[in-house]
Amino acid sequence: MTVEYKNSSGDNENSLDDVLPVSPELVAELINALDNQDKEQINFLLEPLHSADVADIFEQLDDNDRKILTSFIGAEMEPEVLSELDDSTLDDVVSEMDNKDVARAITQMESDDAVHVLEDMDENDQKEIIDALPVEDRVVVEEGLSYPEDSAGRLLQRNLVSVPGQWAIGKVIDYFRTEENLPDEFYEIFVVDPMHHPIGSVALNQIIRSERDMLISEIMEAEPKVVPVDMDQEEVAYLFRQYDMASMGVVDDSGRLIGMITVDDVVDVIEEEAEEDLMRMAGVQETDITESVFEASKNRVIWLLINLVTAILASMVIALFDASIEQMVALAILMPIVASMGGNAGTQTMTVTVRAIATRELTSTNVNRVIFREFSIAVVNGVVIALIIGVLSWLWFNNIALGGVMGVAMVVNIIMAGLAGILIPLMLDKLEIDPALASSIFVTTITDVIGFFAFLGLAAMVLL
Amino acid sequence: MTVEYKNSSGDNENSLDDVLPVSPELVAELINALDNQDKEQINFLLEPLHSADVADIFEQLDDNDRKILTSFIGAEMEPEVLSELDDSTLDDVVSEMDNKDVARAITQMESDDAVHVLEDMDENDQKEIIDALPVEDRVVVEEGLSYPEDSAGRLLQRNLVSVPGQWAIGKVIDYFRTEENLPDEFYEIFVVDPMHHPIGSVALNQIIRSERDMLISEIMEAEPKVVPVDMDQEEVAYLFRQYDMASMGVVDDSGRLIGMITVDDVVDVIEEEAEEDLMRMAGVQETDITESVFEASKNRVIWLLINLVTAILASMVIALFDASIEQMVALAILMPIVASMGGNAGTQTMTVTVRAIATRELTSTNVNRVIFREFSIAVVNGVVIALIIGVLSWLWFNNIALGGVMGVAMVVNIIMAGLAGILIPLMLDKLEIDPALASSIFVTTITDVIGFFAFLGLAAMVLL
Repeated sequence: MTVEYKNSSGDNENSLDDVLPVSPELVAELINALDNQDKEQINFLLEPLHSADVADIFEQLDDNDRKILTSFIGAEMEPEVLSELDDSTLDDVVSEMDNKDVARAITQMESDDAVHVLEDMDENDQKEIIDALPVEDRVVVEEGLSYPEDSAGRLLQRNLVSVPGQWAIGKVIDYFRTEENLPDEFYEIFVVDPMHHPIGSVALNQIIRSERDMLISEIMEAEPKVVPVDMDQEEVAYLFRQYDMASMGVVDDSGRLIGMITVDDVVDVIEEEAEEDLMRMAGVQETDITESVFEASKNRVIWLLINLVTAILASMVIALFDASIEQMVALAILMPIVASMGGNAGTQTMTVTVRAIATRELTSTNVNRVIFREFSIAVVNGVVIALIIGVLSWLWFNNIALGGVMGVAMVVNIIMAGLAGILIPLMLDKLEIDPALASSIFVTTITDVIGFFAFLGLAAMVLL
Repeated sequence: MTVEYKNSSGDNENSLDDVLPVSPELVAELINALDNQDKEQINFLLEPLHSADVADIFEQLDDNDRKILTSFIGAEMEPEVLSELDDSTLDDVVSEMDNKDVARAITQMESDDAVHVLEDMDENDQKEIIDALPVEDRVVVEEGLSYPEDSAGRLLQRNLVSVPGQWAIGKVIDYFRTEENLPDEFYEIFVVDPMHHPIGSVALNQIIRSERDMLISEIMEAEPKVVPVDMDQEEVAYLFRQYDMASMGVVDDSGRLIGMITVDDVVDVIEEEAEEDLMRMAGVQETDITESVFEASKNRVIWLLINLVTAILASMVIALFDASIEQMVALAILMPIVASMGGNAGTQTMTVTVRAIATRELTSTNVNRVIFREFSIAVVNGVVIALIIGVLSWLWFNNIALGGVMGVAMVVNIIMAGLAGILIPLMLDKLEIDPALASSIFVTTITDVIGFFAFLGLAAMVLL
């Protein structure tokens, strides 16, 4: 099967596709060059590209082409290409590279990127590469890896500029002009006391604006923007977003400044965390798109098996009423509507709730109001849908009592769905289970079971 | 109903709840002060807070408290509080404020924030406020509003630093020290030719590092990082993320530099765009959590009505087989399982596809491979689930043929679900319909209809 595919935005003027250097044509030429083992052409095509674009090309190639490309450019791989790769492509590429080439690339990275490249690696390879690093890099990388996954410690780069408060601006500028080992990109400098505790920060534009004889302590913002090294990356991202920051310091347990986090790393975290919620609610891994068929099947089938259990549970409810269905087959025809509408209404509420928890819009201040709000919406929408489907069922089967039963069951199910949609994520969050991961299972189980039970139970009482 | 609720992360050490200044206790105290009309206490509580935190408090208050608070602090409202409010709270607060107070706040904002505050406002209020602005602000705001919604033009701030390439670093630094009207925050300066076309950019840290007699043109990055003013904000965000940028210039149709976009604005866009996908896939508005019950009900019920149509469609398929169900009620018991599993498998594939389209991981280079991959995953998982449910159905109803029918119907439905899950978002994207918005309707319709049809049709042929 072949599908002609072009991202829709390609039809607009000034669209990204006209601006981005990686076109489908370029990738096709590259694949052609790979097939011909034409190293010169490969270099010619890749040379002008930004590392992030080269990384994208790696992600788009199939396994075989990816291997060929790695074998051609692995020895002189740009460190930034590695740090831009997604986890599963990184895994592929690194396992094709010589460990000494990986080590060489890592020595040229900022510490956060080095840790990112190493963290998911096979243990033996990781050890071999770390052993091949110069001792100062090794210490930094090992310390980085010692911090919990998804913590500030994994995002921080060691390299930052910190100065004492009594320095004059002129001295700081002279220091910048002579110091070799400054970070590639930074937006502010940190002010520290003799114990290396942060006592303030100064944006670079403040430094340039100020006269040479001013003291740093006079112009610094006295509340240092720092996070503890073990803070979760989602919380770090929240602070960046809430306070519009470009960088933050990171302190260890004793309050010493040990690194900084810059906004470009946090941008990735923000996108990942929102995407994670979306993916988890649908029962897929965040990394699914780049996983092998086997990995992806395995990860997804677990979700399907859990859903199978809940579907069987719902079927057992139906089985309770098999005699009623035999008497009146219209019940079998209508019952999926009740369950499906409940499922949809529950998913709406659940999605709003999961995001409101994640973005901290739902707090103890407004939780009761939000629950009551969801209940009200469920009542309104339940009644609207119930009236419509009640009348339709009456007309379809020419049975007004059946229409009534359908309507009542629908109201009950949509209200229960609304309550489940908000209460279940709240409870899971309280139990420290990620609401995005587990809510939909419980919500659909409840809407299925209650939907079938309410409809068939009422029908058995009223109609038969 | 009352639920004790605390965000789970509150139990960890070093968690955000210990760091953030807005605690539930503080909000409770504030509400108390509002009820007592205690203006002094209100100011005492809000005074130390960052504008973003004051905005959060506004969002958490109920309508009544929000009104009282606005009436107390509206006249001296910090401009940043307004620009940090979400759309629906902003609407509430601004409509309670005097238009002249809103105008005063707007004159103190960067142009992107001013446009954000004005863009969704009632037309009469908008006009009245714009008329109350000083003429130079009015021109800027009106031009900002003239750009399409969600375009770079709405994100840009006019205030930036641009210099000619022949200036020496020393001259730039002296300019910074004397110029009054610099932006509050900036990370780089732009280099322009006499026509004000951007020809390069220089990061602030490069300026500080360089000797005073170097020329800007010698140290600038010669490829200016700019976007056209009508580029979609999602594409702007993509560029920021892809190339790890802190700010970008914005050019008009004739290529003149007219403003800049900073990363803090883009961070909001990135979170919004990922959240939008999540919300749309579930059939809720992105702004749902802060909408009134009436607004939210209305927006959500549209989705429910569309789903009702698809559910009725599925019921009509069941109705085709009413005679079969009358003969064998086990069919009614098992049929929801087939549909539900298909729906889950389809949603998995669809979610992965929708995100891959949004993040540009799915391109014409890999689309055929990805389709084949989804097909393979569907075959594997279809067979696994079919074997399990086939055997279970056989044992449950002691009917091996029924088990076989169930298994075959399940394989068919999960494979069709996988194909629908990838092909439908791709087709919608090609038709320039947002795949996040419409995919799930089509996918569930297909999985319901095919699920019921395959199972009941096969059963009618084989079993009866």
